This record gives sequence, C-alpha cells and structure tokens, in this order.
Amino acid sequence: MDWKADATVSMGVWERPFTVVRDGDSIPGILWKPENAAGSLPLVLMGHGGQSEKRNEAGLALARRFVRRHGIAVAAIDAIDHGERGPIRVTEDPVGHPAYIALWKRTDTFDRMNADWSATLDAALATGEFDAGRVGYWGLSMGTMLGLPFVASEPRIKAAVLGLCGFTGPSAVRGRFGDRHRADAPRVTCPVLFMVQWDDERFDRDGAFELFGALGANDKRMHVHPGLHGALSVEAQDATREFLAARLS
Amino acid sequence: MDWKADATVSMGVWERPFTVVRDGDSIPGILWKPENAAGSLPLVLMGHGGQSEKRNEAGLALARRFVRRHGIAVAAIDAIDHGERGPIRVTEDPVGHPAYIALWKRTDTFDRMNADWSATLDAALATGEFDAGRVGYWGLSMGTMLGLPFVASEPRIKAAVLGLCGFTGPSAVRGRFGDRHRADAPRVTCPVLFMVQWDDERFDRDGAFELFGALGANDKRMHVHPGLHGALSVEAQDATREFLAARLS
Repeated sequence: MDWKADATVSMGVWERPFTVVRDGDSIPGILWKPENAAGSLPLVLMGHGGQSEKRNEAGLALARRFVRRHGIAVAAIDAIDHGERGPIRVTEDPVGHPAYIALWKRTDTFDRMNADWSATLDAALATGEFDAGRVGYWGLSMGTMLGLPFVASEPRIKAAVLGLCGFTGPSAVRGRFGDRHRADAPRVTCPVLFMVQWDDERFDRDGAFELFGALGANDKRMHVHPGLHGALSVEAQDATREFLAARLS
Repeated sequence: MDWKADATVSMGVWERPFTVVRDGDSIPGILWKPENAAGSLPLVLMGHGGQSEKRNEAGLALARRFVRRHGIAVAAIDAIDHGERGPIRVTEDPVGHPAYIALWKRTDTFDRMNADWSATLDAALATGEFDAGRVGYWGLSMGTMLGLPFVASEPRIKAAVLGLCGFTGPSAVRGRFGDRHRADAPRVTCPVLFMVQWDDERFDRDGAFELFGALGANDKRMHVHPGLHGALSVEAQDATREFLAARLS
C-alpha cells in the first residue's frame, strides 16, 4: 500500500489515498479509518457503482458512517477505466460512456477486478492494522456486477452487501452480467444482505429475485423497497451498514 | 372491555383476559401491558395464525417483548371459530380442521373479523389507557389473511406488519384469499413491513411478491428470508417488532 498524499482528518475520520501495484497495473484507492484507531480494525471493501468513482458522494458518506458509528475502516478502489483509471467520468447518463460499454465486452474484466480487490486486501492486511477475520464487502449495482465474482472467489470476505443487480434487465443484457454471475452466485457462501429496488429500471425485479435465489449462502436475506434503481432509501442504506457492522464489529 | 379474570404479572408484564361483546357475539381476547404503566400507551393489535389461538406460544413471547423492550401494549383476540370461539384447535396439520376449511367458504368471514377488530380497538381506547394516534397491527399468515382487510378498513391503524401470505399457493386457493385481497390491498395505505419466506410452501413467493406490489402504501418494504412458511427466523421476528416500535413508540 503506497501512500500517495498526506492523510486528512474530518470529524474524527482519517482518510488517505493509496496505490496498490499488481502485475504492473496501478490501482488507486482510498482508506478511511478512525483518527484514533487502536488495535486490529474490521475492514469493509467498498465497490462503487457504474460510471462513478472511489470517492463518490454517497460512498464517502457511507465510509464516514462506518468509521464514526462503528469504528470500521473502509477501503475503496477505482474500478477498471473508472476515476483515476479513466476515461469513464461520473455521470447519471444510463446509456454510458463508450469505455463503459466496452468494459462489459472484454473477457478479462471480472478476473482483473477480482485480482485488484484481492491485491488491495493483501496490501491492507500487510499494514497490520486490520483484522483478517473481520473483512466485509459492500457494493451495489456495478459494485455487485464486479463484486459478486470477487466475493465468490475470496474466502476472506466474511459478510457481503450486494444488490441493485440481477440476471435480467437492460444493464444485465449490456453487461453480459448473467453469464458470469449464474456461475458465481452459488459460490457466494458468506452471509449476504441483498437489496432490491422494486421499480428498478436497469435490473428488473424478477432477475434480481432470481439472483438472490441463486446465492449459495444459507444465511441470506433480501430487503425490497419501492423506487427506481438509484433511489435507495435512507432506511435501506442504514440496513446495509448495520448488517455489516453486526457481523464485523 | 369486560375483564374475565384477575390480572397476572410475569416479569413486569401485566396480562388479563377480556371479552368484547359486539352484536351479541362475544370476542375473547387478552391484553398485555407494562406492570407499571404510566401515561397513554401505544397499542399493537396482534392477529394469530391459522389453527392457532390468541395466546399461542410465539405470540405470547412477542407480546411480552413488545411490553418489556418498548413499553408497547398488545391486544390479541381469537379469530372466528378459533381458540375459545372453537372448534378449531391448535395444530401444525396444514390440511386443517373441517371448521377451518369451512371458514374460508363463508361469505361473511372477512367482514365479521373486521368488525371484531374494530370493536376490540373501540373497547381498548375506551379504557383511556391507550393513545389513539399510536395503534399498529401485527399479523402473519392467517394474521394477514384476516388482518389485511382490517388494516385496509381501519384508518386508526398507523403501521402494520403483514406477510407469510400472498395471492397464490395452496392456502390462498383454499382461502379464496386472492379475491378479497386483490380488492383490499390497494386500500392499505399505512406504512407496512411485509415478510416473505422464500421457500413458503403454503403461499408461493410469486404470489407474495404480487401482494406486496399491490399494497397501496408508498412507505412499504419487504424482507425475504430463506425457509418454509413456519420457519420465520429470529432476525425476521425482531425486524417486525422493531418496525412497529420505531413507528409507535
């Protein structure tokens, strides 16, 4: 974990950008932890949504809440071609940047992200500050598209928040999401909270339910709220945080 | 509210059986409240499941938790032909007592139960001990089959826990549940937590999802857990209690 700049502190939350180098690829990330951390901390790996980046507004707020309310550290990285790994910019445009569309046509996207995340976890644990037995994953929408294969492949993940994603719908078709994830879903065996937006226009609810059913975890639950893909309620957000906090704290 | 016996107290929970008389019909019930109640209490009306009765084991435990953990009073009544209103006995047999099967062939079952519950609420509020603005309903399975029409018809219900029920499946077909409830679901407009068991063998999940979708409430959410109809997890049970407590306390 190579630190890229000085740490900053905001209301008790220590934050510092880092880079992890893997096979010549440079993975930019951010780590958040309590300003006065003591002992071995739980850690949540947080995957951002499509056409977003590691320090997006909602993710930053969530990371700070993990730190302030639960004393849980958070690490986020830019997904391939996102953020500092460009050229994909933050946008609400559902059609997408050409590079975003291309990302889902490449055959190595999922395996590269799995390796990026595992290398990030290796680097974080190598600092000696985090408890290898208390690591979770949080990622919705593209954070599940790219995170589900990672959780399926990484036994160090002890609990995961997934969702806003499924086997069918416009974003699933574009992302060829179903192919990889029908194979990987049964391999997700850690406790899972799976979030569904009833009126999701990008991943339809039937395909989301099907994905939930396919998850291999015995200890899983699904929370469903009315609303479009991007309209996750505060109640739903809080439930995701409390789910991981209860299992990692 | 005619008291039928002396009150008993168990670890801070005051309990007393009562009768409410309505149009010559006698409705037996039980009221639970804090032993040292002060002020105007929130009240949960608790509907039991099919072939059960007002003081079933799980319901008794739930009522005591509402009282002890949240200071919320609970009133339960026997459903028509159940408990003291016989002849339906407590059983796990899914086929059912002939009187249970007959209950769903009668045309007046839903309207009678609606009136029974409203009369019970009238009687409870007439004691002056409860806050008319903080009344909730809790009922799963038959507690929804009979409770959904009640919640739809009773504006004094401010929040409801419903579920383990849907438009389709063996119990829905037998209960002609779908007919009445397709009409009533849009009239349920208070906040709702709807519980679904993913492997429910009595009400299939698709019909449960359909019922959730039909609920008129904007403020609704659905929690789905693996397991058969009768295997509600502790996590799911706790969520139902905390949902009502957050809205009534």
